[in-house]
Amino acid sequence: MKKESIYVKNQPLSEAKRLWREALARSGFYDRRPSAIIDVDEALDRLAAAPVYAQHSSPTYNASAMDGIAVRFQDIASASETQPVYLVKDHFMPVNTGNAVPERFNAVVMIEDVHYLNDGTVELINPATPWQHIRTVGEDIVATELIIPENHRIRPIDRGAMLASGVTKVEVLIPPRIAVIPTGSELIAPGETVRPGQIIEFNTRILAGYLNQWGADAHAHKPVDDDPDKLRQAILAAADDFDIVIINAGASAGTKDYSTEVLESIGSVVVHGIATKPGKPALLALIGDTPIVGLPGYPVSAVLTMRLFARELISGFLGIAPPRETNIEAVMSRPMHSSMGVDQFVRVTLGQVGDKLIATPSGKGAGSVMSMVRADGLLTIPAGIEGIGAGESVSIELLRSAAEIESTLVSIGSHDNILDLLANFLHLLRPPIRLSSAHVGSMGGIMAIKRKEAHIAGTHLLDEDTGEYNISFIKRFLADMPLQLINLCYREQGFIVQPGNPRKITGFDDIVRHGYSFINRQKGAGTRLLTDKILRDSGLDPDHIRGYDHEEYTHMNIAAAVASGSVDTGMGIRAAAFALQLDFVPIAEERYDLIVPQDYLADLRVTAALDIIQTNRDFRERILSLGGYNLRESGSVLYRQ
Amino acid sequence: MKKESIYVKNQPLSEAKRLWREALARSGFYDRRPSAIIDVDEALDRLAAAPVYAQHSSPTYNASAMDGIAVRFQDIASASETQPVYLVKDHFMPVNTGNAVPERFNAVVMIEDVHYLNDGTVELINPATPWQHIRTVGEDIVATELIIPENHRIRPIDRGAMLASGVTKVEVLIPPRIAVIPTGSELIAPGETVRPGQIIEFNTRILAGYLNQWGADAHAHKPVDDDPDKLRQAILAAADDFDIVIINAGASAGTKDYSTEVLESIGSVVVHGIATKPGKPALLALIGDTPIVGLPGYPVSAVLTMRLFARELISGFLGIAPPRETNIEAVMSRPMHSSMGVDQFVRVTLGQVGDKLIATPSGKGAGSVMSMVRADGLLTIPAGIEGIGAGESVSIELLRSAAEIESTLVSIGSHDNILDLLANFLHLLRPPIRLSSAHVGSMGGIMAIKRKEAHIAGTHLLDEDTGEYNISFIKRFLADMPLQLINLCYREQGFIVQPGNPRKITGFDDIVRHGYSFINRQKGAGTRLLTDKILRDSGLDPDHIRGYDHEEYTHMNIAAAVASGSVDTGMGIRAAAFALQLDFVPIAEERYDLIVPQDYLADLRVTAALDIIQTNRDFRERILSLGGYNLRESGSVLYRQ
Repeated sequence: MKKESIYVKNQPLSEAKRLWREALARSGFYDRRPSAIIDVDEALDRLAAAPVYAQHSSPTYNASAMDGIAVRFQDIASASETQPVYLVKDHFMPVNTGNAVPERFNAVVMIEDVHYLNDGTVELINPATPWQHIRTVGEDIVATELIIPENHRIRPIDRGAMLASGVTKVEVLIPPRIAVIPTGSELIAPGETVRPGQIIEFNTRILAGYLNQWGADAHAHKPVDDDPDKLRQAILAAADDFDIVIINAGASAGTKDYSTEVLESIGSVVVHGIATKPGKPALLALIGDTPIVGLPGYPVSAVLTMRLFARELISGFLGIAPPRETNIEAVMSRPMHSSMGVDQFVRVTLGQVGDKLIATPSGKGAGSVMSMVRADGLLTIPAGIEGIGAGESVSIELLRSAAEIESTLVSIGSHDNILDLLANFLHLLRPPIRLSSAHVGSMGGIMAIKRKEAHIAGTHLLDEDTGEYNISFIKRFLADMPLQLINLCYREQGFIVQPGNPRKITGFDDIVRHGYSFINRQKGAGTRLLTDKILRDSGLDPDHIRGYDHEEYTHMNIAAAVASGSVDTGMGIRAAAFALQLDFVPIAEERYDLIVPQDYLADLRVTAALDIIQTNRDFRERILSLGGYNLRESGSVLYRQ
Repeated sequence: MKKESIYVKNQPLSEAKRLWREALARSGFYDRRPSAIIDVDEALDRLAAAPVYAQHSSPTYNASAMDGIAVRFQDIASASETQPVYLVKDHFMPVNTGNAVPERFNAVVMIEDVHYLNDGTVELINPATPWQHIRTVGEDIVATELIIPENHRIRPIDRGAMLASGVTKVEVLIPPRIAVIPTGSELIAPGETVRPGQIIEFNTRILAGYLNQWGADAHAHKPVDDDPDKLRQAILAAADDFDIVIINAGASAGTKDYSTEVLESIGSVVVHGIATKPGKPALLALIGDTPIVGLPGYPVSAVLTMRLFARELISGFLGIAPPRETNIEAVMSRPMHSSMGVDQFVRVTLGQVGDKLIATPSGKGAGSVMSMVRADGLLTIPAGIEGIGAGESVSIELLRSAAEIESTLVSIGSHDNILDLLANFLHLLRPPIRLSSAHVGSMGGIMAIKRKEAHIAGTHLLDEDTGEYNISFIKRFLADMPLQLINLCYREQGFIVQPGNPRKITGFDDIVRHGYSFINRQKGAGTRLLTDKILRDSGLDPDHIRGYDHEEYTHMNIAAAVASGSVDTGMGIRAAAFALQLDFVPIAEERYDLIVPQDYLADLRVTAALDIIQTNRDFRERILSLGGYNLRESGSVLYRQ
């Protein structure tokens, strides 16, 4: 029973958008544009549904613009230092700023220029110009004047101008109400204990958050089970109550994805499957004039697909221009391949390294929420392009402020838990420095430094011949680059094992002998080099280690695999075992250093990090509390070239 | 009784800031930093009070990354198109994305590559790599991993990552509670009828709005009368309940400004009077550890002074870096003088005219809310500088988004009510175009075009010799500039008079004969030229016209003066009289044209405006409904050079 009928079609994005816009226009979705009349006091950040004109002028009377006295300018025309003019009561009047200036006066003299004599007379030594220091009727705002145009977002100062001109009610646009419906019997609420096969329902919290930031009134619903009838009821009820319905997920080809058949039965499916990556299994449908958007299940796919359609739906409903994305020019650090005919969206990290803003693809899967947490921007590779070369200039849509990017210290290389700690200490500085930390292993770090993608790289590469760490690799791969090698720590490497070490693992021979399952680090990782060296030294064949081919990228991932019980052991640092309450069998002490190119040694972001490493006692204490660290040379320059 | 004791001191801004920061540090204000533990669901846009670490890993189990079947990769290692492998029940398991992959399997084959046979067996023609399409434990998030650092503003994706890793509560910073207290017996609530001497209390609505945008929890209070006892009670109560108290106004030298003496009696005044313009009468005081900021009364002064101190107070209270201002480089269109020793803040309009971003000082008084509504940016002239020359490059703090500035059509010149109408039609376009319209009279417009400050200029200058409008002035002042002169309208000029024309004014001889009061337009205005021509033609002496020296800048201001009863009449267009329900005595029909330099004729902002003028029927109907307009040549090019 081959289920070909449920395979998604692969519509090009541009074609999907065209079909969708046409269907929306036909549906009447754009024609509703509801508005409400509300108090100006409540109108901050709302969009004006109509132009606002001044009800009356401001000032409404001729008002003194100064604290002082109101006079007739003719009376003091001859005043001078040698021939002062004296005015008695009735020929002047004390006024404060804002006081009405009676019709018989036509100028105000500020109090600093008024000399009160004891009998109440005033002495003036300067003449006045006609109407000086008087704010005449309508000087600020004239009745009927345009205060703000239609579709303007009301700012505090606009609110003030409206109130000043007698406008106390304003017609504002009502944002679209959006239902975000999660589907799947495997979903459980945040905070519940997760059993295998269950997934915490957090996508709607991400999706509704963005929708609200984009100007909607979004509501996350409770999960709907994988049951066509329940799904149909939920969608129909939401389509009745809301202006837009978003379903997550159910549009792909899984055996339990009912969204498509349900929507075909109660509405019209406009587009099913869009040639984007990630995001292919997307669904665009209408029930009457209510758009229904079916998003892929993975959080990153869901967010990126939603961006493609929801922002335009929201602005279209409001009848305003879609928000402009903030783009920034950057240089690709490495080539990116892309399939012809597919619009590809690539999460990138951005770093101002040297004089260039460098974009580096984060390269994580669509299931990785953290990759999106860490991402700085989004690169779109259009369908007509096969890829982008290293060094090519690209336009990146910013996911953070440019200021945040500017203040980001880019670290690429081996992972150590100290980096998380450093990230937090850097972020507490004023202004804060953000640590963007990519974990690609020690060799990956050296290559990132070579390609000028990173300010610093953490590395712990053991030279088997010399027994020395890092320096021979630097001489080989970074020969021409002036740099310093600064120690971060010494740390214990060993086997991460279940609490109590039930398998009694003390070396690789135990693992081979008993056929215990192992989890390995990726090639190029310092820990991998150490593993391979130990295996060679003990004459063991990697093929005899179960799981040698199963690679992970960080110490913490090794520890997590052990903690989950899916493997017996893996090689990693003590702090990783300690963090997950696992046991640890030490094998070696290794040195973990930071490579810092000379060019960045004076960079404020780098000096701030080095300052924390070298002088911050609290930082050092926190490191030591992680376990397995020795800071005897931390912060010292071990090598320079 | 010279009241010198209440004159404000004039502290330099830098000195005031230093004294204030020191006093704040001593007071303990910075040490409170309250926080609260709240649901992650409620935490969007809040600042994390502590770093957030993952409670558990995600995925928490080995999960299928695809819809398909789970297999052992060893079982299908030999699969090929010619030699398929067949798996029977128990040797594979159907899985959907997110399903747990049981321990006995170590790879997933996606459904597209699975061929189901009728007996439930599957046929596979490709081998699998170990762990393919399996998301291993912790692949996304590893328990104890840093999700967000301290002081990070929580975004929707952060919320998702927290929930995904089992974090359901988060400690967030509590924003400072700020009381904004208006003072003055003359203040009335918005919506009430304004009598002379009364002022609508709208400042606190502006101030509280900005404070909330800057991250505070601000509350606008009811006005407090000018009574030292009431003021003392109000301030003491607010200092007790709130973290920061802002008083508006009462810090200047008026006879009813009690803030200073009250604060001296119940707290300590740190700074009184700061050498800024606008903003001099500012007051910085402490009651215990509660900062009290006394702001000047004028809305613009109040906002600008508040910017100087409140943003830093808010970020200081939260223990975060102050927000970075968004600055943009621009070129000054004209010189700005400034007093040595005074930090001056100048509202500017910004226009992308040609290849330069041009900053033009708006030059309005501190009482003008509309000048702040219209302002695009803020220029700071530091105390040590005497001024800025025309053509000099300056850094402008943006008050609007750069995108809004880019899409702004800059019109400088004579005012006509049609421009307000045009502004609204332009703002309804998608993307919207903003019309920045400065009213400086016809000659001012020609000079703005000459200085390349504006894209278009409205002008109606009558050449007395030829009887022709505008062209001879263009030949004289814009001789070398290729441009087009495009008609906007013909319009009636005449006397704006009280309803029913009770003075029976038909000409200037009536005004001179009866000594009626007149209000004039400024020199360089087309209407002023017309006035002066008529006076000369009729042999009347301007000195015999009461109010000839009293100048206003727009037709609407003339109408507003007549409507207020403070003058009997002024010269203006029929639409201005009509808008304020006044009567109108026509004197002449004049031509109002737009000057458009050749360089901008292809500019999208200009073409959009011309398109509305030339083709939009709704726009034309609305113009005609304003009264006094004739559109017989509207949109036609009358002259080019």
